[in-house]
Amino acid sequence: MPTATSASLKESSMKIAVFGASGTLGRAVVERLGQHHDIISIGRTSGDYRADLTDIASIRTVLEKIGPLDALIATAGQLHFGPLAETTPEQFQIGLNDKLLGQVNLVLAGQHHLNDGGSITLTSGIVSDEPIRNGSNATTVNAALEGFVRAAALELPRGLRVNVVSPNVVVESWKDYGPLFPGVEAVPVARVALAYQRSVEGIQSGRVLRVW
Amino acid sequence: MPTATSASLKESSMKIAVFGASGTLGRAVVERLGQHHDIISIGRTSGDYRADLTDIASIRTVLEKIGPLDALIATAGQLHFGPLAETTPEQFQIGLNDKLLGQVNLVLAGQHHLNDGGSITLTSGIVSDEPIRNGSNATTVNAALEGFVRAAALELPRGLRVNVVSPNVVVESWKDYGPLFPGVEAVPVARVALAYQRSVEGIQSGRVLRVW
Repeated sequence: MPTATSASLKESSMKIAVFGASGTLGRAVVERLGQHHDIISIGRTSGDYRADLTDIASIRTVLEKIGPLDALIATAGQLHFGPLAETTPEQFQIGLNDKLLGQVNLVLAGQHHLNDGGSITLTSGIVSDEPIRNGSNATTVNAALEGFVRAAALELPRGLRVNVVSPNVVVESWKDYGPLFPGVEAVPVARVALAYQRSVEGIQSGRVLRVW
Repeated sequence: MPTATSASLKESSMKIAVFGASGTLGRAVVERLGQHHDIISIGRTSGDYRADLTDIASIRTVLEKIGPLDALIATAGQLHFGPLAETTPEQFQIGLNDKLLGQVNLVLAGQHHLNDGGSITLTSGIVSDEPIRNGSNATTVNAALEGFVRAAALELPRGLRVNVVSPNVVVESWKDYGPLFPGVEAVPVARVALAYQRSVEGIQSGRVLRVW
């Protein structure tokens, strides 16, 4: 009967691109996964490479430059927050075009730039399951991403996987987002980063990895 | 102790607008709810009034003409079906802009044209929970609608309610959609219409009413 050894338990080093690497969440993911893997940081205005997830051509250009990858991670995306009674279609489209379609774009483009068995990890948020005041756009977009991952996982070939991490508000962003989440127990961003490691180094696919 | 009488059990007649009234689902909803209520049928190209859910101005124009309503129902919406490996952002936007934002538009505009205690009932679909091949856009959009309803229900004032019906493939559309749903047991559209009645005449809000 085989026994687990430290060698068999240790993941070999992967080449991982993190989109949104300069954000609070992105930095924590880079710190966590950078311990054992080669990280390429990508952002709209900073990082090893520049790309805008809402512009699929910019994603393709960067992925072609970098060459085949083992994992893609997105931690970026804008939403609209405001009262439902006053929301306009244009405001609602902010989340649809940015956080939702931006991350969908990463899958549409990225699936063709991953090594066999590679993974894509997206980001939704607790508001998908626990709506907050003024958060209808956020709940919609996060639920959409969770649906997308559920479906996309079943169509990806070559052992490719896709998951989505649903973080709670993180302690490190509490001063910005805390007022929107009365009574919510924020989690340290380092805990959220663990879920990305689980997605990248694990075998699950089509899953929502909640960190609450 | 009060006893239920036929009078107390009978809903009084409501004024209900059905968007997409000429479709397979819309016609069944009109037939069911038309037995006890005043139905106003609305469509892109037919019906008592014309409106396009993707154009919020056209919704507002029609709702202002009709005057205050007790219920709004949407049974319309386009999606993209195709392999994930070949899907473009433009194709993915079909579902986001039409079935998703179209129905969101109905809530954004409609909330201001309902009598106290009125309801809005949207339409998602079984593919939200049970993905099918080539259906990533459909799963995403239907999941988004279910998220939207979950959040919007909590912000609506004056006892207004919003639900979403998630129908299975219906027997009456089997010749068009059956090939996409191998092994699925289609349901008669008249059964699906019952869920709209439950939403309109019931007291639930923020719910996904599944008919599978």
